[in-house]
Amino acid sequence: MAALRLLLAGFGNVGRRFVEILRDRAAYPGLEALDVSLVGVTTGRHGAWTDPAGLTPSALLDWHHTRDRFPATLDTLEAARTLDYDVLVELSPLSIAGRGEPAISHVREALARRRHVISANKGPVAWAYRELMDLAHRNGVRFLHEATVMDGAPIFNLGRHGLRGNRILRLEGILNSTSNVVLCEMERGLSLEEAIAKAQALGIAEADPSADLEGWDAAVKLTALANALMDADLKPEQIERQGMGTLGPEELAAARARGHRIKMVCEASRTDHGVAGRVSMCELPESHPFARTEGAGSMLRFHTDILGKLVVAEDEPDLSTTAYGVIADLFELTQDRQG
Amino acid sequence: MAALRLLLAGFGNVGRRFVEILRDRAAYPGLEALDVSLVGVTTGRHGAWTDPAGLTPSALLDWHHTRDRFPATLDTLEAARTLDYDVLVELSPLSIAGRGEPAISHVREALARRRHVISANKGPVAWAYRELMDLAHRNGVRFLHEATVMDGAPIFNLGRHGLRGNRILRLEGILNSTSNVVLCEMERGLSLEEAIAKAQALGIAEADPSADLEGWDAAVKLTALANALMDADLKPEQIERQGMGTLGPEELAAARARGHRIKMVCEASRTDHGVAGRVSMCELPESHPFARTEGAGSMLRFHTDILGKLVVAEDEPDLSTTAYGVIADLFELTQDRQG
Repeated sequence: MAALRLLLAGFGNVGRRFVEILRDRAAYPGLEALDVSLVGVTTGRHGAWTDPAGLTPSALLDWHHTRDRFPATLDTLEAARTLDYDVLVELSPLSIAGRGEPAISHVREALARRRHVISANKGPVAWAYRELMDLAHRNGVRFLHEATVMDGAPIFNLGRHGLRGNRILRLEGILNSTSNVVLCEMERGLSLEEAIAKAQALGIAEADPSADLEGWDAAVKLTALANALMDADLKPEQIERQGMGTLGPEELAAARARGHRIKMVCEASRTDHGVAGRVSMCELPESHPFARTEGAGSMLRFHTDILGKLVVAEDEPDLSTTAYGVIADLFELTQDRQG
Repeated sequence: MAALRLLLAGFGNVGRRFVEILRDRAAYPGLEALDVSLVGVTTGRHGAWTDPAGLTPSALLDWHHTRDRFPATLDTLEAARTLDYDVLVELSPLSIAGRGEPAISHVREALARRRHVISANKGPVAWAYRELMDLAHRNGVRFLHEATVMDGAPIFNLGRHGLRGNRILRLEGILNSTSNVVLCEMERGLSLEEAIAKAQALGIAEADPSADLEGWDAAVKLTALANALMDADLKPEQIERQGMGTLGPEELAAARARGHRIKMVCEASRTDHGVAGRVSMCELPESHPFARTEGAGSMLRFHTDILGKLVVAEDEPDLSTTAYGVIADLFELTQDRQG
């Protein structure tokens, strides 16, 4: 069986870590069965590099370390439309203002050409799930997106495999790292500004953290979960959304004095009309499982009709945790080819 | 595709709940795709009932409710050897004294006849994993056992699907419900005897709870995990094992006063010579994720080389949670047939 030929759209932190893992694959015995080659990398502002014979991971990383731009000029949409590849790996940054574009167009283009798509970008799953999944089904290819929620924790994989036969009645969780780090730091007495600066210094918060603090990132993730696991047809704008607002260290200290913690909680539940989603700041007793999420950790509780309640939690994720989401999806594709 | 024909070995609490779910399947929309028929039920002391044309779930349950014995006399080994079925569902009780027998012989017989096996009995996985898995591979059938650890939580499924490509470096968890219920009740001030009586009244502890309190059940589960997920070749006797001993409410209260809880913790880790396992009573700070397991709940933390740390926790399991483990394995078989 020939190697899966990958086209990487984006070469940021997660893309580079993914390519580093490929470069260092001898150190990971479980990757022996993973047979992939890189036939192209495109970026937003740093050029592109393509080679039908395959780019070596170390050459890609060396080039990135030593120069500002890759040698070619080719935008992702054009690459998705014209190059020969088996899988588009969509690693471009989420655009909330763009309502998932231009990533949605990249994904649509690849699926229309009967190429598999692995998206670490949440936009296509949150704003165009049904359209893209229908297109993938019609064309006999897969649209996978494990890295979009809780990094590489096997959330969507559980829906396909480990929880099969269950109906998911409700999902609840702590899904946004930046807000959780900021809340934990403010509990230690930092001001909002200091806590944001700390989260930025840790590499968790972006330069502009407003999408995280206002609950947009959480709403996008919750939409992705509801669409993929509860057969919902939601857009992030339909999520009832409460951000951190003016919450400060005083409120958190007062809650702590009551034995409570304040967390940004995501919930999706079934209603008579489909699925409703909410992101809100909740004061929870310290014994509550959701109150226990520290720092950049995250957790999700599934309520199902047969198995009952299952919690999946991720502690201290790093870039490898997210890059693993792409690897998990590659294994899912490999399994299909063996099946 | 024809229905999978099941031979149930055992008709205790889990077996009956499984058959109730089949009877009530219209209430579970996710089970629509599950196509099974029951061609036989055998029990240790309550007779057997077989019908190549299929037994109806309601008839089986009605018979059980109204009479002491099924109509036929046929032991499980003979049934496994002579009946025509596709899957042996091994639901007989674990025998620690018998080192997994007679369930191991049932499983071996079925696999040798090229029939799939789903075992909710931990014995075959703990005492004969490699032999049985090799036999299954040679004969082109599956040996599945999701219900053996943490009820139906998708632990082994994660090893096959959601964590693929990772090397599991270490496993740690709280896996024995009886000891955890007894510890939680003693923390509330009950004596050991009262706590055991409470656990028995809740239907969690057996009439003789010694295998649970001495850490044998935990050691058997840890062996199953190490063998199936870490490629170990362990037997439960090789697990370093510390039971509850004379631990009483005073020690638990003293730990609580220090902000700690005492838990029965299972750990398996890689060594230079393979995998080593340990069950021990650990005093943990209340903030520790393992300290948070209440009552009959359980949890497992995976340490992996790429994804990092992942926790799976089960809250308030009931008989459906365990029965789901069998259903999950049936879906795994169905997937193979579609593949």
